[in-house]
Amino acid sequence: MKVVKTVAELKDFVRAEKNAGHQIGLVPTMGFLHEGHLALAEKARKDNDAVIMSIFVNPLQFGPNEDFERYPRDVERDTKLAAAAGVDCLFVPEVEEMYPAPSVVTMTVAARTDKMCGVKRPGHFDGVVTVVTKLFHLAQPDKAYFGLKDAQQFAVIDGLVNSLNFPVEIIGVETIREEDGLAKSSRNVYLTEEERIQAPYLQKALQLGVQSAVQGEKSTEKVIERTISYLQEHAGAAVDYVELLSYPELEPLEQVQGKMVLAAAVNYSKARLIDNIIFNVNEGR
Amino acid sequence: MKVVKTVAELKDFVRAEKNAGHQIGLVPTMGFLHEGHLALAEKARKDNDAVIMSIFVNPLQFGPNEDFERYPRDVERDTKLAAAAGVDCLFVPEVEEMYPAPSVVTMTVAARTDKMCGVKRPGHFDGVVTVVTKLFHLAQPDKAYFGLKDAQQFAVIDGLVNSLNFPVEIIGVETIREEDGLAKSSRNVYLTEEERIQAPYLQKALQLGVQSAVQGEKSTEKVIERTISYLQEHAGAAVDYVELLSYPELEPLEQVQGKMVLAAAVNYSKARLIDNIIFNVNEGR
Repeated sequence: MKVVKTVAELKDFVRAEKNAGHQIGLVPTMGFLHEGHLALAEKARKDNDAVIMSIFVNPLQFGPNEDFERYPRDVERDTKLAAAAGVDCLFVPEVEEMYPAPSVVTMTVAARTDKMCGVKRPGHFDGVVTVVTKLFHLAQPDKAYFGLKDAQQFAVIDGLVNSLNFPVEIIGVETIREEDGLAKSSRNVYLTEEERIQAPYLQKALQLGVQSAVQGEKSTEKVIERTISYLQEHAGAAVDYVELLSYPELEPLEQVQGKMVLAAAVNYSKARLIDNIIFNVNEGR
Repeated sequence: MKVVKTVAELKDFVRAEKNAGHQIGLVPTMGFLHEGHLALAEKARKDNDAVIMSIFVNPLQFGPNEDFERYPRDVERDTKLAAAAGVDCLFVPEVEEMYPAPSVVTMTVAARTDKMCGVKRPGHFDGVVTVVTKLFHLAQPDKAYFGLKDAQQFAVIDGLVNSLNFPVEIIGVETIREEDGLAKSSRNVYLTEEERIQAPYLQKALQLGVQSAVQGEKSTEKVIERTISYLQEHAGAAVDYVELLSYPELEPLEQVQGKMVLAAAVNYSKARLIDNIIFNVNEGR
């Protein structure tokens, strides 16, 4: 596996692969890799001739009071894991390499962002689409892989690609979970021992909500209420939001119908956890 | 020459060229082709295996009181001219094909735009970078060709490409002129007979300004004043602006030094004309 730190080296790698007629798969990450990231890499490995993984904690997508500085990092361990997962080129740029000068053009997400995590994280998705645009232009992937745990991020990137005609197919990969159902996340390391025991109830609550919707509950409010009350009873965390929206448009629904996401965020003492279920309810004909 | 109206057909053309290992040159235009556009196409023809020209009057880059509706169009004539210039694929989409839905992501030009034409045309360059981004993603050119008559547009696209790491080399092509020096422009058809006689003084005034700078005038204000007074005396038009800025950064200068653009815009009764000279003054060592 090649490990490159500069844009110039990455371009050399990409040029050689393109000249060889190879299909490229890109796995953008912020590092501190867990099984969720590795599942993306393994899927990319199966689908493509060459796999590029990027590790870049993107300052542009962190708010001033968020955890940019203390976001967990372990490049040495990540390098071993990426190599073992079949990555061909690991791109690990410094901030100055990605943002050498103030940007002449800024990107703003105009939809799919005034709900779920977007409400509490103004500018977050602007930073996401900017770095994803830069990575797409640098790596020129045929396919790019994103985890569906970040359901809103995937919806926003779907909007980015469609609105601006990127020649990239984006692939959403199912969330990888611990045995007890807790979604794998780099931020799980922030949980206390007790919180770690309670955290799986986040997914259980969502399953309960989806179950009621699939079994015929038509009121979005009732699905949401059921999910919230189960969370409050079992998860031991402050509920930030529970939302049921169309997917990937993330529009409010008059009733339970079509392709939807039931999503939640909860706050533990030092960790904000998110999870979701994307599902379908199709009524009659 | 292939004439295509849909994104899907253009993608098919691009895919076939890419699979053949061909280099692609893109010439984005708003049509009503003149020798300036054809010079771009001929340069693209020399440099590349395949030449794509787009003709699209982009509503996003016109202000509410600008000439979007009455902007001159003649696709039949353009098609013949493009074929004769060696274009391989002419992309002529309808507005709905380029903007089928409200964009999830918007692009804003954050620099190089609060001067020259950008002052009077708020949002204009936002529309330019959006459509150029879409065309770059659709045509996937190795090189893209733009006329230097729109010096600010070229500077903004230079900023777009560098800030967002587009894998495209942009080529600025010298302005093509009538025998009397008037820059070719689709908007020249708006000139009255008398105005057509006066219009070449726009370029003459800029030449005079540049001459004084090259001959040792260090004061940017004096270079600008000289250009304005010559314009006022001879061009028979209302002077919108004359500016002398660094190029391509378009920053104000303390004194005449380095790579610069001397640019002007004037208003005739029904036509706003622009012109510029990009030049160098390098002092000592």
